[in-house]
Amino acid sequence: MGKHKVLNTPAIRRIPTYLHKLMLMHASGEEFVSTSKLADYMDLDPIIVRKDFELTGIQGTPGVGFKTKELIAALRRFLGWNEQTTACLVGAGSLGSALLGYEEFAEYGLRFTYVFDADPRKQGTMIHAHEVLDVRQMHKVLKLAPPDIGIICVPSSVAQMVAEELVKCRVKAIWNFANVCLKLPHDVIVQREVIAGGFALLSMKRRSHS
Amino acid sequence: MGKHKVLNTPAIRRIPTYLHKLMLMHASGEEFVSTSKLADYMDLDPIIVRKDFELTGIQGTPGVGFKTKELIAALRRFLGWNEQTTACLVGAGSLGSALLGYEEFAEYGLRFTYVFDADPRKQGTMIHAHEVLDVRQMHKVLKLAPPDIGIICVPSSVAQMVAEELVKCRVKAIWNFANVCLKLPHDVIVQREVIAGGFALLSMKRRSHS
Repeated sequence: MGKHKVLNTPAIRRIPTYLHKLMLMHASGEEFVSTSKLADYMDLDPIIVRKDFELTGIQGTPGVGFKTKELIAALRRFLGWNEQTTACLVGAGSLGSALLGYEEFAEYGLRFTYVFDADPRKQGTMIHAHEVLDVRQMHKVLKLAPPDIGIICVPSSVAQMVAEELVKCRVKAIWNFANVCLKLPHDVIVQREVIAGGFALLSMKRRSHS
Repeated sequence: MGKHKVLNTPAIRRIPTYLHKLMLMHASGEEFVSTSKLADYMDLDPIIVRKDFELTGIQGTPGVGFKTKELIAALRRFLGWNEQTTACLVGAGSLGSALLGYEEFAEYGLRFTYVFDADPRKQGTMIHAHEVLDVRQMHKVLKLAPPDIGIICVPSSVAQMVAEELVKCRVKAIWNFANVCLKLPHDVIVQREVIAGGFALLSMKRRSHS
């Protein structure tokens, strides 16, 4: 939520959808893909898809489209997903479990290295092949090799404390699912996920429709 | 994802965050609020906050700001959240459970009326005070009084089928958390939630930062 950068947020949010679809198409042997096909799949204007791809610098061939494999590579490179991103997850409740079970993250280079929870009943259990560790061990476990990002899925009342602890462990980017805006040093990158934001959009669409 | 409407997506996504913060401020007795205070909380430029509020039609008083209560009412009215929205949830896995446990939905007028799952081990159990019903009963249960929205948290391989079944039950709006774009009649409103979209944004912020 830094003030200094302006990103084309809706376009960037669409990229994982392009990528996932392109990977399925590539797996089923489709060597070429047109923007209109992807636009049709996502119910978007083809111009939007073309502009989104322009951001990545890749150019298609008129009348042919893009080589599926090259487009996948260009999109992954654009997001830096050609390299692996390591993540630790704090808060192994239902939302945290859902994230650990989200299969597509592997496609995007995201790898969970550690999972922490404060609940002793969860500690030592396995969630999607990840052992849940005691959150009090976080500093000891992370300080030598901090992951690229810390994912916060704890209740909002403790999210700030957890975030500060992650920063102390030299974690430089936070993906925050708690319903609170974090106050962190300005060199820490924060992406906040607001589930209700989608409900707001759906509500507006219902209003403009009725 | 209709082609016909252009919504100010980032602004609308921000409204639940304003609303949640304003409700906390109101609960702690803060009668007036300035855009700069909200901007500071969300690490945004105050101009953005002011423009967001302009969308709702409410006007503040220079040097004073907004009456907290009136601003809450204006934001809720803007989204239609002054009225209740009923929802059925299909797929009571970890993500579905997380949504059922998301306390702020009640603040936004969202009420879960039914929860369905295909897994017999889940059927009959209670998740956050909601009984899980057999998904095969969906048509029988919903057809008389379809909810305002259907929330899809099933695996992507069955999401299209579940969506079509919801449409048959006269559900007119779908909030889709499955990793697939649905093909539905054009009078059905669809909002797709892409968890990886936030990861894409975080990745871009990391790239522009480094």
